[in-house]
Amino acid sequence: MADVAESERRILVAVDEGEESMHALSWCLKNVVSQNSKDTLILLYAKPPRAVYTALDGTGRSEDPSGYLFSSDILAAMEKYGADVAACVLEKAKKMCKDLQQDAKVEARVENGDPRDVICQMAEQLGADVLVMGSHGYALIKRAFLGSVSNHCAQNVKCPVLIVKKPKTNAGSK
Amino acid sequence: MADVAESERRILVAVDEGEESMHALSWCLKNVVSQNSKDTLILLYAKPPRAVYTALDGTGRSEDPSGYLFSSDILAAMEKYGADVAACVLEKAKKMCKDLQQDAKVEARVENGDPRDVICQMAEQLGADVLVMGSHGYALIKRAFLGSVSNHCAQNVKCPVLIVKKPKTNAGSK
Repeated sequence: MADVAESERRILVAVDEGEESMHALSWCLKNVVSQNSKDTLILLYAKPPRAVYTALDGTGRSEDPSGYLFSSDILAAMEKYGADVAACVLEKAKKMCKDLQQDAKVEARVENGDPRDVICQMAEQLGADVLVMGSHGYALIKRAFLGSVSNHCAQNVKCPVLIVKKPKTNAGSK
Repeated sequence: MADVAESERRILVAVDEGEESMHALSWCLKNVVSQNSKDTLILLYAKPPRAVYTALDGTGRSEDPSGYLFSSDILAAMEKYGADVAACVLEKAKKMCKDLQQDAKVEARVENGDPRDVICQMAEQLGADVLVMGSHGYALIKRAFLGSVSNHCAQNVKCPVLIVKKPKTNAGSK
């Protein structure tokens, strides 16, 4: 690495439950993070707002004008499910960091909101030097959010954005 | 760098006459290229087709149904101008590589065509491990090509894509 590696870069990696974001993290650890640098990896999991979960059953009932949706028990269970998924994703991501870059400083964050907004806001707020993300993340909420999260972030985040696609398993790429 | 640094990565950098692409190259040299790796930097200048130059006078005469445009002298002069710009941009880019990463292997290429197509094709053809580009490149041809070149490439290139924006001079970012 060049002289900049001596500085303390803040590398923000947006992670989600998809394999693609884990691949993006892995690529970043192998290709961007330096072994002897003072880089800090910030793993960010954006937890979509509750309205998204209620839309996930595919029936569109969340838009039912009657306003009747789910009992508080079900909402609480969904909330817990969301928190469990976030914890699970971040654990997996932290383990990958430890496996691939033992010495890297790693922070993990969960933020609530539309991933597009959350990622852009956090990149700014945390003073990220680079944002790393998969290209097809957040498949679960594709129906709820139009447009690609990575496209939106590439357009709106001020710092450099690295978009990593997961190669198809039968692809001949390196 | 992790073990991957030992491999010979092919880093494709799309350069143009804009400051943003030079900033992207500089960021890449400082943050992605390793000093002791066997990385190869491939500097790619996409020379827009002649039709674009003829549209550059802003009068839209290139779409004139009369088909009368420019004399062959003017077309030849434009062609030469395009080649001169390409050479100048690549010289500047090569100098930057030498200044920031003395040992890096550097190749330079000029390809004719719509930058969006050229960059995507070359990324595939050259087996690029990562594509690096500015986000607002090709300002000169903005009027001729709708949509952002970097957006298009981020969506269509299979390898990881790093989009680097040039920070505003008065911005407080690093």
